Amino acid sequence: MRLLVGTLAGAQSVFAVQGDMAVNLTDAVPDIGTDLAALTAAPDLMARAEEAAAGEKMVNVADITPALPVTAPPTIICLGLNYTDHIKEGGYEIPDYPALFMRGRQSIMAAGQPMVRPTCSERLDYEAELMVIIGKGGRHISEADALDHVFGYTVFNDGSVRDYQRKTHQWTPGKNFDQTGAIGPYVVTPNEVPEGASGLKIESRVGSEILQSSNTGNMIWSAASAISIISEYSTLQPGDHIALGTPPGVGHAKKPNPRWLRPGEVVEVEIEGIGICASPIVDEAETMQKAAM
Amino acid sequence: MRLLVGTLAGAQSVFAVQGDMAVNLTDAVPDIGTDLAALTAAPDLMARAEEAAAGEKMVNVADITPALPVTAPPTIICLGLNYTDHIKEGGYEIPDYPALFMRGRQSIMAAGQPMVRPTCSERLDYEAELMVIIGKGGRHISEADALDHVFGYTVFNDGSVRDYQRKTHQWTPGKNFDQTGAIGPYVVTPNEVPEGASGLKIESRVGSEILQSSNTGNMIWSAASAISIISEYSTLQPGDHIALGTPPGVGHAKKPNPRWLRPGEVVEVEIEGIGICASPIVDEAETMQKAAM
Repeated sequence: MRLLVGTLAGAQSVFAVQGDMAVNLTDAVPDIGTDLAALTAAPDLMARAEEAAAGEKMVNVADITPALPVTAPPTIICLGLNYTDHIKEGGYEIPDYPALFMRGRQSIMAAGQPMVRPTCSERLDYEAELMVIIGKGGRHISEADALDHVFGYTVFNDGSVRDYQRKTHQWTPGKNFDQTGAIGPYVVTPNEVPEGASGLKIESRVGSEILQSSNTGNMIWSAASAISIISEYSTLQPGDHIALGTPPGVGHAKKPNPRWLRPGEVVEVEIEGIGICASPIVDEAETMQKAAM
Repeated sequence: MRLLVGTLAGAQSVFAVQGDMAVNLTDAVPDIGTDLAALTAAPDLMARAEEAAAGEKMVNVADITPALPVTAPPTIICLGLNYTDHIKEGGYEIPDYPALFMRGRQSIMAAGQPMVRPTCSERLDYEAELMVIIGKGGRHISEADALDHVFGYTVFNDGSVRDYQRKTHQWTPGKNFDQTGAIGPYVVTPNEVPEGASGLKIESRVGSEILQSSNTGNMIWSAASAISIISEYSTLQPGDHIALGTPPGVGHAKKPNPRWLRPGEVVEVEIEGIGICASPIVDEAETMQKAAM
């Protein structure tokens, strides 16, 4: 199933999408609620959703404004450097454990919503990433069993404010500016993509300018491996998000000059078979003027 | 007010404590709910709580089993190195920005609950810390205004698994083992302590063995400063937790040998005027046997 959480005529619902048309699953099965939280936690609800999704598609996808797939993810865990071609490019050794950091709820927003360049920095950068949404929770999950814990896959743009990321050795501030991490819009269930969503083209761009272009098969730590590593220390919960790192081509590494995102641009991240996550860049000052109006 | 969230005869409530006795605020003002989430978000509710707290104390504090002050904190942000005496001891330069990391909900538990030493490591370490709980939220909070955003102060033991903290430059795994960060039991409102909860003795110990002993006045970044710095990048929410770093004397730095926490010990963190956060150390294997019974 290809799922889309979004608002239509002012009401937020979960939709099952096929081509340009969709079924409103929330209307068909009210227990589903208005985001994916209930579906990630209840496999029996998923069976009812699938049944409803087979019904007649009455809604135009174009009329739906995407919202966050899970309104309040319990935890958002992100891997740093995870693409071999990026590491080779930089002349680094392949590490034996992923660099892990966390993002808070305030730092994320839905696909289509503005990505905010803060007043304090012009160094806003994009990072195209595959994101896993956890279904069945658990601890000490083996790599062999890990994919049984995946609810679905989505697209993530791990927007980063580079000078704040490097204020100290801990990346937290630069990865947690308000409204810089874009998620969605589509969440595809595992049966829609190759195992572990591996082997998919992943790209970021502004207009016709291709910024990053790689393949999810180039990741060092697969979705299964990341789930296994994280669950060694923490019990994963339904609805947790895991971002799997970005390929080469990020703005701060561009030569001869860094390529920062600028207000007025629209940055897109696309993963083959999953979808396009587009974010218009706006200045923080502009959002504050709007809030004051 | 000195607040305590805990269970009595199987029901969780918010209590106002005076000496050995307490008033059940949840019974008196049902809108308060069963943890501090509502109180942190609603100043008018706080006035009603204060009125109720002035009533007759009918409950023995000893009969209450502490629970987390806020069951699901929106965000738990922690400062690294923040005590000048610790930095001087190590011969480091005073940094100009705090090292910031985050903990997830699975990593924390109430005072009195077991702190779990994982099967994969024996390097479980204590860190005595002052913790701020945010009341009024906000972004771009000046240091001068920051203390208006404090709901209260509590005690934190930032239990850390050192080898996993150092797997890479990002500390996340070692700071996020299930049930290693102890919070509470008491949350005191700002009027109960000196400004910013500064100038208070802070200590950790196992029995008569004093492990850390310092004063919250030795912090580089005060509560006000931390709130201002974090709110530069992120909108703080009511109920957010900020942990303010630990003084010297942590186990991994003890000479001639590191001093790891061992199952059977009880580690205590005390902050003058706030309270004692005690955690019995248990082996993960033991908690799994209990869960299976």
